Amino acid sequence: MLRFPLATRYSDYDTKGHVNNAVYLTYFEWSRVQAWQQVATAGIAAADIADPPLIVAEARVKYVSPANIGVPLAIEISVKEIRTKGFSFAYRIVASAEQDRLVAEGETVQVAYDYGAGRTMPISPEMRKALEGM
Amino acid sequence: MLRFPLATRYSDYDTKGHVNNAVYLTYFEWSRVQAWQQVATAGIAAADIADPPLIVAEARVKYVSPANIGVPLAIEISVKEIRTKGFSFAYRIVASAEQDRLVAEGETVQVAYDYGAGRTMPISPEMRKALEGM
Amino acid sequence: MLRFPLATRYSDYDTKGHVNNAVYLTYFEWSRVQAWQQVATAGIAAADIADPPLIVAEARVKYVSPANIGVPLAIEISVKEIRTKGFSFAYRIVASAEQDRLVAEGETVQVAYDYGAGRTMPISPEMRKALEGM
Amino acid sequence: MLRFPLATRYSDYDTKGHVNNAVYLTYFEWSRVQAWQQVATAGIAAADIADPPLIVAEARVKYVSPANIGVPLAIEISVKEIRTKGFSFAYRIVASAEQDRLVAEGETVQVAYDYGAGRTMPISPEMRKALEGM
Repeated sequence: MLRFPLATRYSDYDTKGHVNNAVYLTYFEWSRVQAWQQVATAGIAAADIADPPLIVAEARVKYVSPANIGVPLAIEISVKEIRTKGFSFAYRIVASAEQDRLVAEGETVQVAYDYGAGRTMPISPEMRKALEGM
Repeated sequence: MLRFPLATRYSDYDTKGHVNNAVYLTYFEWSRVQAWQQVATAGIAAADIADPPLIVAEARVKYVSPANIGVPLAIEISVKEIRTKGFSFAYRIVASAEQDRLVAEGETVQVAYDYGAGRTMPISPEMRKALEGM
Repeated sequence: MLRFPLATRYSDYDTKGHVNNAVYLTYFEWSRVQAWQQVATAGIAAADIADPPLIVAEARVKYVSPANIGVPLAIEISVKEIRTKGFSFAYRIVASAEQDRLVAEGETVQVAYDYGAGRTMPISPEMRKALEGM
Repeated sequence: MLRFPLATRYSDYDTKGHVNNAVYLTYFEWSRVQAWQQVATAGIAAADIADPPLIVAEARVKYVSPANIGVPLAIEISVKEIRTKGFSFAYRIVASAEQDRLVAEGETVQVAYDYGAGRTMPISPEMRKALEGM
């Protein structure tokens, strides 16, 4: 599991002063990028570190308690399952200054994708190794 | 069921030329607002038409096929279930110029929320009637 | 000059219930895409209609009056100047149900860019012709 | 002058792999919030630290060189001018790992706004003092 403080933006908040529901998927995505850059190991091309050959196949968010503007947030990301062509991440977003009150939790499924050939592909051994290191 | 053409934006597309995964929740939200304005009936305050007293409790997206830039999209929204305090919508996003190829589908759960009192509340009869009219 | 009703999104609005300041540049961009698709003529490749070979060099917005949630907006776009390698658009965003009360106005400068070669290029005769048709 | 590393998001990048032009205003806004939280002093209400009583009156961006995905960015913000009811910030966004290559620069004008009364107001002495401390 990896944990990061979230750099929220004023435009993330809606008319009620809460983080907009769609933005949580952006937070999930941001934590994936951070996690990936942290665990990516030798054998992974630089271009695939900045922008990995993956597509998101599914996403799910459960909104547990509101995140008002001014409330510091942190995100936790962990690998839930690794399969041949894909893997899933689980996420928890917490109010870090309020004893980690749970704000939202969710899950995404990613599939390795060969953008040149236009089809899914098995996860590379290097990617698998990196994911196992999370 | 209501159906709307989607006004996509250039910034919705990512480095792969696809609609970014988080943006689908924004499309879902946009269709909710459109649907709501269309079905809102007498007895619903103007402020609650523009910005209804609801919170999103859950969201789920399944990404079925990519939506490349330049591909016209439409969204279909339907009521899936109405309960005492909440209700769920189902969504389908399709490539409208390609025989409605399915791009993404999903679901959100909304709960009526009294922002003044800071707690959930039963759906008003007017809101229920409006939802049943979708 | 071309004019379009704006498809605003709930997430465009900030904690004050106003369109967020950065979103106006997204509205400008959206109107450019709409205008471009409307005036693009024979001789322009389909890929360059969906995603034209341009970079934005400058942008300026003046926020004149607030756009609250629920207020219908329209955008007007016009060509201000066409030079050898670039051109500028002027924009006006108005509250269309309030006698076109001016909400914001602005300007962007675009430069034709050869993404393959990585450098600016002269505007093609077809693009110039299309722009002159706005 | 204050300087912050920018927490870019995957969705900030467009189909060309560059930061979208509208996102720069979001970066400017984010740096304003960071700067404000850093310089806000005794006498400023907590609510006005999280979400200060200001409106943006003008914004200007000059896009100098592209910011590709994977390129670390930093933002510099400084007070340019303080008047009775408003003040202006200047910004520089640089590629911090490339000897601070200039990516974009710009400026915004903010005006103090009494949201209760619905009109502009003079900058409070506390806000002025905080701004002078930047």
